[in-house]
Amino acid sequence: MKSLLASWESLCAASGALRFIDINLRGVGQVMFQDNPLSGALFLAAIAWGSFAAGVPQVLFGGLLAVVAATLTAQWLRVEPASLRAGLYGFNGVLVGLALATFVAPGPLLWAYVVVGAAVSVVAMEATANVTKTWSMPALTFPFVLVTWLLLLATYGFAGLSGAALPSAGVVVPFQPMAATRLDVSLFVQATLLSISQVFLKGSAIAALLFLAGLAVNSVAAAVAAIAGAILAVITAHALGAESDLITGGLLGFSPVLTAVALGTVFNKPGLRVAAYAALGTVFTVVAQAAFNVALTPLAIPALTGPFVLVTWMFLLPRLALDRR
Amino acid sequence: MKSLLASWESLCAASGALRFIDINLRGVGQVMFQDNPLSGALFLAAIAWGSFAAGVPQVLFGGLLAVVAATLTAQWLRVEPASLRAGLYGFNGVLVGLALATFVAPGPLLWAYVVVGAAVSVVAMEATANVTKTWSMPALTFPFVLVTWLLLLATYGFAGLSGAALPSAGVVVPFQPMAATRLDVSLFVQATLLSISQVFLKGSAIAALLFLAGLAVNSVAAAVAAIAGAILAVITAHALGAESDLITGGLLGFSPVLTAVALGTVFNKPGLRVAAYAALGTVFTVVAQAAFNVALTPLAIPALTGPFVLVTWMFLLPRLALDRR
Amino acid sequence: MKSLLASWESLCAASGALRFIDINLRGVGQVMFQDNPLSGALFLAAIAWGSFAAGVPQVLFGGLLAVVAATLTAQWLRVEPASLRAGLYGFNGVLVGLALATFVAPGPLLWAYVVVGAAVSVVAMEATANVTKTWSMPALTFPFVLVTWLLLLATYGFAGLSGAALPSAGVVVPFQPMAATRLDVSLFVQATLLSISQVFLKGSAIAALLFLAGLAVNSVAAAVAAIAGAILAVITAHALGAESDLITGGLLGFSPVLTAVALGTVFNKPGLRVAAYAALGTVFTVVAQAAFNVALTPLAIPALTGPFVLVTWMFLLPRLALDRR
Repeated sequence: MKSLLASWESLCAASGALRFIDINLRGVGQVMFQDNPLSGALFLAAIAWGSFAAGVPQVLFGGLLAVVAATLTAQWLRVEPASLRAGLYGFNGVLVGLALATFVAPGPLLWAYVVVGAAVSVVAMEATANVTKTWSMPALTFPFVLVTWLLLLATYGFAGLSGAALPSAGVVVPFQPMAATRLDVSLFVQATLLSISQVFLKGSAIAALLFLAGLAVNSVAAAVAAIAGAILAVITAHALGAESDLITGGLLGFSPVLTAVALGTVFNKPGLRVAAYAALGTVFTVVAQAAFNVALTPLAIPALTGPFVLVTWMFLLPRLALDRR
Repeated sequence: MKSLLASWESLCAASGALRFIDINLRGVGQVMFQDNPLSGALFLAAIAWGSFAAGVPQVLFGGLLAVVAATLTAQWLRVEPASLRAGLYGFNGVLVGLALATFVAPGPLLWAYVVVGAAVSVVAMEATANVTKTWSMPALTFPFVLVTWLLLLATYGFAGLSGAALPSAGVVVPFQPMAATRLDVSLFVQATLLSISQVFLKGSAIAALLFLAGLAVNSVAAAVAAIAGAILAVITAHALGAESDLITGGLLGFSPVLTAVALGTVFNKPGLRVAAYAALGTVFTVVAQAAFNVALTPLAIPALTGPFVLVTWMFLLPRLALDRR
Repeated sequence: MKSLLASWESLCAASGALRFIDINLRGVGQVMFQDNPLSGALFLAAIAWGSFAAGVPQVLFGGLLAVVAATLTAQWLRVEPASLRAGLYGFNGVLVGLALATFVAPGPLLWAYVVVGAAVSVVAMEATANVTKTWSMPALTFPFVLVTWLLLLATYGFAGLSGAALPSAGVVVPFQPMAATRLDVSLFVQATLLSISQVFLKGSAIAALLFLAGLAVNSVAAAVAAIAGAILAVITAHALGAESDLITGGLLGFSPVLTAVALGTVFNKPGLRVAAYAALGTVFTVVAQAAFNVALTPLAIPALTGPFVLVTWMFLLPRLALDRR
């Protein structure tokens, strides 16, 4: 693996075109914190599989268009080169593209919208990072969430863009207790895997395995944290009596998965205390995900990874006696 | 009084168990900024009275469970010892417990929810304090408000937790002007006292007197500011034509009471200019309370002390020629 | 022009009353970033024209009352004298007064509300500036937006204040595509001019010309940027299929106009790269304006200049290789 990556790196050093591809692959990899072109390639394969399997190839195209637009914008804005090379200006862009192409009906205006959104995600990344670095904090996917929320909300005011798969607005009502579906083993496994694939807005077990492979080639700990976080999220949501379809669709687990990876492996050194701390954060992200779903009901937009950003910031801000990286 | 507290302090110094009780009592006292175990004990007596009088003893239990859970979490996270001893990691916890037990129906999941909420309130406290100290600002009850809003919103997505006393969602509509009830003397006194007891989510005049006693044993100025703030809030709300039941129930006055105590005595040195400044803040907190009530109508959650936090931060942030402590 | 202003300045230096007038005129001028009493006087003439032409003279009165109340409050709070003289404590106040008098029915309580709102806008300005200066950022009209949102929301809870021209609450629904009105030349010109006059909540082409004159006497670049921003906003909104009445009424263009002036001339040195960057920000402000309109639909309050504040902060925060002033 290492020699493969070393050969690739020397090829990139010799070719501007390959370097550009490398930056974009790392941009995809950084959605799950992996600064590794192979992770990015595997993630991309997962996105491709998930998009074609669901009959929405335009979602793959949206993601590719967006990450390239984001990288070009970052180059035009002359951002800091080391961060650019590490893919830190691409991950919000690719998510903007995936989300817009998932929730809005295809058409020329959509692609213009994707390009504007990806370009603005780079500005939002610089802006967010400038604020969060005051407390030595990462921007996480806040730029993606902010820009995509605005773009999706605005579609309700524009005849040229219609939200094909957006939730419809509703009034907040008490959840009707019903006999919860028993989570048998196969549903439990499905819920766990889809919690991982939904990080990239995909509901596919095969895509989930490709995502896990992409994590494992760069960090086995991250892959383990993702699985553990997904399992903990599914158990928590089930115990609290969440809607079964949300659980088995992975829709209450993707933010907790990101929290588990971020708190458990990326920003803290793995260990017992850190694991307990990350577990508390993961459980609370399930609560936050349900809360965001409710709070956004009147606005008819999805929570995206907003709950992950909020809870992970909340758990990274304290200056605690944890093993911080 | 002083010798009593000195004896207590020497007992605490000798016994870990008593020190633990002391920390928790101070945590209760810090809800109204009083670093004094006697204040905390009197506040606890008021909570007990209010809970039993209203036939909801589980609210007292929720508060006690939460403050202990918060203190244990803070110890596990090895927070700064002086702040821990001053009760600064307990006041958000006790409020989380009181609010959850007030608004959610009792049951085993509620108590698990209270423990998680209290534990997360400690993390939120560290996170908030790390941000606000950038501008030499206190965290106030922001951690309580944030964590409780998320926990309450999430109940609408969980069958295991039902909001027994949560407001129901509605559409924002213009207030129907009606002949306002005249505030006679007894209603005026009731409105003033309940504005004080509602700081702890209690609607009881006797509890209010116990709360005032708890303030007075540590700071007569704070007790005077609480009464003055309550009176000013009741007059303001009445003059603007607020709903009579909200006024006499103390539900428009509890945030202004906290603003008055904070701006008038805790963070500024009492005086004429400070009193005028605190009065402006208190009046505007009534407006903010009404605004939060309206803004949260579609979400069916209560404003809690959010208006106090917003306005008090707004009035503490300016570097003005006031006598700042 | 310069000798006129120099004579005026020497008159002000000799007379406290004239100095007070000068401060208030500059306060009005600062709504569009112009520290110039002549700009302020022309803006005031535009507000007067727009108010009388629309049959709402009380709006002019509201603006005047508010700017004077804000200046007096700033003097009482002993703010920094140079900023006070530059009108930096007046522009949020005048906007609070114009907005309240536009959206709330006249009456004694309204004027009390205007005075309280204007006074609090000064506190909010100090608070915001203290936070934003951490990243060398201006407060923009955030204090106006925050204070006015709270005051307008609260009217739904007070019988004494009724929102005469407030939007009514609704559910977020997909925009119904309809045959868009063709923007012929006269409608296009109207849309462009009203996008400028709506910065001061006025829908009047003549007022727009007076606003442009007020800009031009202090900065021709600002006037050009305002026109260019308005044209770009109208084209963007039309291309995306926004509602024709909103476009021709200037209601999707006023925030983008402010973004264009701020990013293109006030905080960056005009040039090609800066123009392209400002254009991206202007286009995205149209999206943000539509998004805010949708997001505030359930709350029945207007977006005010919130979209301008959000996008301009987002585009000023990055430390980019642009020619920053």
